[in-house]
Amino acid sequence: MRVMGVDPGLTRCGVGVVDGSAGRRLGMVAVGVVRTPVNAETAQRLVLIERGVEEWIDAHRPDAVAVERVFSQHNVRTVMGTAQASAVAMLCAARRGLPVALHTPSEVKAAVTGSGRADKAQVGAMVTRLLRLAEPPRPADAADALALAICHIWRAPAQDRLRRARAAVPRPKGTLPS
Amino acid sequence: MRVMGVDPGLTRCGVGVVDGSAGRRLGMVAVGVVRTPVNAETAQRLVLIERGVEEWIDAHRPDAVAVERVFSQHNVRTVMGTAQASAVAMLCAARRGLPVALHTPSEVKAAVTGSGRADKAQVGAMVTRLLRLAEPPRPADAADALALAICHIWRAPAQDRLRRARAAVPRPKGTLPS
Repeated sequence: MRVMGVDPGLTRCGVGVVDGSAGRRLGMVAVGVVRTPVNAETAQRLVLIERGVEEWIDAHRPDAVAVERVFSQHNVRTVMGTAQASAVAMLCAARRGLPVALHTPSEVKAAVTGSGRADKAQVGAMVTRLLRLAEPPRPADAADALALAICHIWRAPAQDRLRRARAAVPRPKGTLPS
Repeated sequence: MRVMGVDPGLTRCGVGVVDGSAGRRLGMVAVGVVRTPVNAETAQRLVLIERGVEEWIDAHRPDAVAVERVFSQHNVRTVMGTAQASAVAMLCAARRGLPVALHTPSEVKAAVTGSGRADKAQVGAMVTRLLRLAEPPRPADAADALALAICHIWRAPAQDRLRRARAAVPRPKGTLPS
């Protein structure tokens, strides 16, 4: 299974592609960052992100795309940009029919380090070890994108089982989808 | 000048197209809503919004697209969806080279009613009068999209002058773009 992780942001979108399956060795395929100029208009930045994400998908043909789920406990201005960048990444994947999975930052940290409260350095160190890299990927957004991909490879089988179980239970009317 | 206004939302995107120029009579070209199913996955909903916005642009060929600027003082969950839907609308317009303008809800209200604190009913009533419609457009998102388009038609000349004036002044290093 080849997963492309995207750590969304208007200024920098971390992108990391990992091959692997639960219980097997992981292998890094590629890692990098899609950047947009801070002084460009938001609409134009979204076009650049679309172009960048499309190029990554074309180059590496992932089976699934994992995007960091955006929360709004942080700086409001940043969160809006992150939500917009994540929308473009999700759109690029979904319109090609690729499955899109969302994982929260703490799910990603817990998956790769064992603790949902791990810091950037710990995540970077574990990604480096798990993928047998010579040094931690830079910038941190790139390491986070690899961590997202690893998290998805490990969590996807459990999530699929949950989804099938939920689909089998009739949902009470008016309930929100999970 | 033909402007397409988009009131973004994951469940309902209001869309309204208006012909006009500052100081001239306004004319409604079309109004409607792009809907997506509440129980679909977010990525899939963004694909449906993209398809819907593309169809509106194809059908009516606007000269500019005005999108409501998203703020986060409201419900957090709603705001994320609104930011994501707005990103898709902005992307669709910008990648065709159409100018994208953002107006805040209070700018729109002030433009069409004279008060930035006008309620939905007042905005609907003024849109109905300004466009000489038989009755207020429903749902409210559709009326809001028309109000956005009208706001843009009236504000665009002033915004253009401001933008040119700003571009003529060298910006101090490290300042955020406006």
